[in-house]
Amino acid sequence: MVVQPRTTEQVSEIMHLANDNHIPVIPRGGGTGLCGSAVPIEGGIVMDMCRMDQIKDIRVQDLYVVVGAGVIYAKLNQALKPYKFSFPPTPGSADACTIGGMVALNASGMRAIKYGATRDYVLGLTVVMAYGDILRTGTRTLKNASGYQIDRLMCGSEGTLGVITEVTLKVAPLPGMRKMVLVAFDTLEKAGRCVSDIIAKPLIPSSLELMDRVSIDAVNKALGDPLPDCEALCMIEVDGEPEIVDVKLAQVETIARALNPIDIQSTGDIETMNRWNTSRKAIMTSLSALKPHMASVSLADDMAVPISKIPDAVARYQSIADKHGVIVATYGHASDGNLHTKMLVDPTDADNWRRGEKAVMEIFEATVELGGTVTGEHGVGMSKAPSFQMERITMLEAMAAIKRALDPNNILNPGKLMQWEGSILRNLRYPCDEYSERDVPPAQK
Amino acid sequence: MVVQPRTTEQVSEIMHLANDNHIPVIPRGGGTGLCGSAVPIEGGIVMDMCRMDQIKDIRVQDLYVVVGAGVIYAKLNQALKPYKFSFPPTPGSADACTIGGMVALNASGMRAIKYGATRDYVLGLTVVMAYGDILRTGTRTLKNASGYQIDRLMCGSEGTLGVITEVTLKVAPLPGMRKMVLVAFDTLEKAGRCVSDIIAKPLIPSSLELMDRVSIDAVNKALGDPLPDCEALCMIEVDGEPEIVDVKLAQVETIARALNPIDIQSTGDIETMNRWNTSRKAIMTSLSALKPHMASVSLADDMAVPISKIPDAVARYQSIADKHGVIVATYGHASDGNLHTKMLVDPTDADNWRRGEKAVMEIFEATVELGGTVTGEHGVGMSKAPSFQMERITMLEAMAAIKRALDPNNILNPGKLMQWEGSILRNLRYPCDEYSERDVPPAQK
Repeated sequence: MVVQPRTTEQVSEIMHLANDNHIPVIPRGGGTGLCGSAVPIEGGIVMDMCRMDQIKDIRVQDLYVVVGAGVIYAKLNQALKPYKFSFPPTPGSADACTIGGMVALNASGMRAIKYGATRDYVLGLTVVMAYGDILRTGTRTLKNASGYQIDRLMCGSEGTLGVITEVTLKVAPLPGMRKMVLVAFDTLEKAGRCVSDIIAKPLIPSSLELMDRVSIDAVNKALGDPLPDCEALCMIEVDGEPEIVDVKLAQVETIARALNPIDIQSTGDIETMNRWNTSRKAIMTSLSALKPHMASVSLADDMAVPISKIPDAVARYQSIADKHGVIVATYGHASDGNLHTKMLVDPTDADNWRRGEKAVMEIFEATVELGGTVTGEHGVGMSKAPSFQMERITMLEAMAAIKRALDPNNILNPGKLMQWEGSILRNLRYPCDEYSERDVPPAQK
Repeated sequence: MVVQPRTTEQVSEIMHLANDNHIPVIPRGGGTGLCGSAVPIEGGIVMDMCRMDQIKDIRVQDLYVVVGAGVIYAKLNQALKPYKFSFPPTPGSADACTIGGMVALNASGMRAIKYGATRDYVLGLTVVMAYGDILRTGTRTLKNASGYQIDRLMCGSEGTLGVITEVTLKVAPLPGMRKMVLVAFDTLEKAGRCVSDIIAKPLIPSSLELMDRVSIDAVNKALGDPLPDCEALCMIEVDGEPEIVDVKLAQVETIARALNPIDIQSTGDIETMNRWNTSRKAIMTSLSALKPHMASVSLADDMAVPISKIPDAVARYQSIADKHGVIVATYGHASDGNLHTKMLVDPTDADNWRRGEKAVMEIFEATVELGGTVTGEHGVGMSKAPSFQMERITMLEAMAAIKRALDPNNILNPGKLMQWEGSILRNLRYPCDEYSERDVPPAQK
């Protein structure tokens, strides 16, 4: 069943009913999540939040806005623009994802180095608990020391602890100006050094994207060579008051030049910057067009490592790919350590797919060994559940205890993140060998 | 008993022992908290973290540091200074408070408007749970979407959910320059307008302090007139790259001048800025010297309201004070809405004290009505427990459920924040009428 509530009170009534009858409830935002968090794997009620889409209060003089959970990210920023403010996380799914979904997944994007993730902007939440109670947590002030910060606990809980219906978000002034530098290198190591040297200056860019040879080739083939032909490139954006942007731009150029780049271009021209950003965003789709019969798959697509470990991480991912005979493209938000690694496989070749799967677990293990996480911004859902459990071995018991305390009947988004009591973890990308009888949909029985 | 563990493993052993024997454990940082969080009201083991004071890893190239929970705030920043980085929250107790204590209380200070509170810098924690398990939560990356953010839940939990032994903190580049503007007004309303107009520009200062007539008089009397004689003043600090600081300073001056101030002074001179900051910090002690037989007491000292509600809040606090015939001084971190209200009472006059107590609860109620919180940065502990429970009425059940799940025997800092199962809430400032037999220390029986 799909329900589309309009008010917090309606959500509360539904939760009362579901809890009394032990019916799973799966909260759903824009449906843009990449790990299956909103998939109703045990059936039940999909709670589609799209009708709770009111921007309720814009209070830039108090640095906050109050919005319904179903408000689309891009629409909120359109509404904030006349005030010269924004909600900055900039997820890749900006035009479709909802604020409630962003909170539930702790979404972020390419500007996290300077502007942080969604968790850093949540001042308060209205949440309907599993047992139907309406909880108001957080404040409309920039800081509080008033008890458990349940609002921050809800960030990244992926709908397993409560249904977020209203969000109070901190907003930030829009920067007066943005400019970009594109630097092409003859080795990936130099690109990694460029990232580290900028941070250590210290200089915090608003974004710093890295692309490897496979990614560059894919985009150049698909879009007609918008990027320089090279082994690796860095795309660096600086923003702020106009008086300071050129100073920072010059500092970035100086750092990059010291590494003997093949090419270096700077611009403040919006069209050029849009073209560069479009090239970067086109990697995912371009990869599938790079080689005949090969498709780009998101098997291991969202690892994050400490910034200085990026060259290490990329080298290890490559050597794992070589060992298993698969093609791996690495790119991502290098300045916050977030790497988007895509694998090119032939989906009709079972052996190629299996080799890819083997490589993936080794990539995750290498990431954790380097002090990183298997998911920087996409979340866990179903597809990352096995690697998540490897990464979070010391945390699982406390997570399960919190889950049992707040959702004793395990009705909220069951089967996600980890194996909760009474729920079978099913991973749609790596099917488990053992299914329990109750997990087989009735139609297939 | 007081224990001073050196390692996480020692803390774990102590917790095992305490949990098996149902002995309360009270984690203690620098002992600088203002609400009694570290007071062992039910006896037991005070876990003094002062020996876990190693700065374990400074990785500015990765924008993080790893420190033992007992590291003093100011010492960490001394160590970071050569790298041109800092951990920015700047609590008033900077020279004595510990990082672990700051996390447990979600501490902040006068620069929260630009730099946020401690919660915004916690990337990861090592926490020993009530049952002795060692939990590692968070990451060494700037963002993660990897399950429940238990690290952020620990921020503000005041030692009731676990013992924090190690902290991974995000660090930020030190600003290249700081300058200040001091603006004197003939009405408090104009000072409030000045705050709102600066934020709405939008212009985010690094701090913006407000002082009312009582505070100014107290400081001028105690320190020999360092401040202009006026009804209210704003002390505004801007920081950043040298290229931008003067631009911002001029913008602040323009906004302030439009409000017809009595006096306006700007400076980049460190000695002058230190003198102004010292005057501001001296309010608390100066107040006790303002009138004979009157002492400054922290009965209601840490409310925060939405920024634009500051003039409203100050006016309502004054009218409550007048109604009850008590003197109230209001000052604080106006740009983040945090007001430090001190009451002047004659401690030997029971009637005066009782009138003060009555005014306090009305001040808290007015704060919550204005959309604020009873504690912006000091925490709840014992002294704010009654007002906290009024503010957080919808959150108490979920808090208790989480507490029971993670500390079933209620051994971690019992009797703080709220009435946990099996524990009697005692408020040392407003003694409860009912004490249970077990709460009376053995010596008094």
